[in-house]
Amino acid sequence: MDVNILGIVAGVLTSVSMIPQLIKVIKEKNVEDLSWVMILVLICGLSLWVWYGILQNELPIILSNAFAVLVNLTLLICFILFRKKS
Amino acid sequence: MDVNILGIVAGVLTSVSMIPQLIKVIKEKNVEDLSWVMILVLICGLSLWVWYGILQNELPIILSNAFAVLVNLTLLICFILFRKKS
Repeated sequence: MDVNILGIVAGVLTSVSMIPQLIKVIKEKNVEDLSWVMILVLICGLSLWVWYGILQNELPIILSNAFAVLVNLTLLICFILFRKKS
Repeated sequence: MDVNILGIVAGVLTSVSMIPQLIKVIKEKNVEDLSWVMILVLICGLSLWVWYGILQNELPIILSNAFAVLVNLTLLICFILFRKKS
């Protein structure tokens, strides 16, 4: 199998699996189960993967991790908007 | 920066960010918020990333995705053990 196609299929599957949590958080406006520290750690890690992909010149890695950065930035924004002021 | 070190740092960060959910599920024995379909999709995607890493001969990709497969297999086992029989 062409390794780029393999990477794209892998990236689509791991990307698709993030969508339900995002939809749930946006719909229910409930961020109790989210940890902003872990979202920040994840965003740092994913950004480094994007950088890694750029250095290695591997498009599947760049695209799937850039998508994941966007999803988690959105989760972070939801966290800031929906958290209880307590 | 050496690209392998970059990949390892990225892998450690994205791996660390999965641990709290795993600990929470094991501690609270509550899998209500998990979707087994999404865990399966994620395991398939992560396994393809491991395969991709093997074909590209990139150790950081192999290690971090293999770790993620293990975490999500554990979540799947928790799901089977702790789900409410209804």
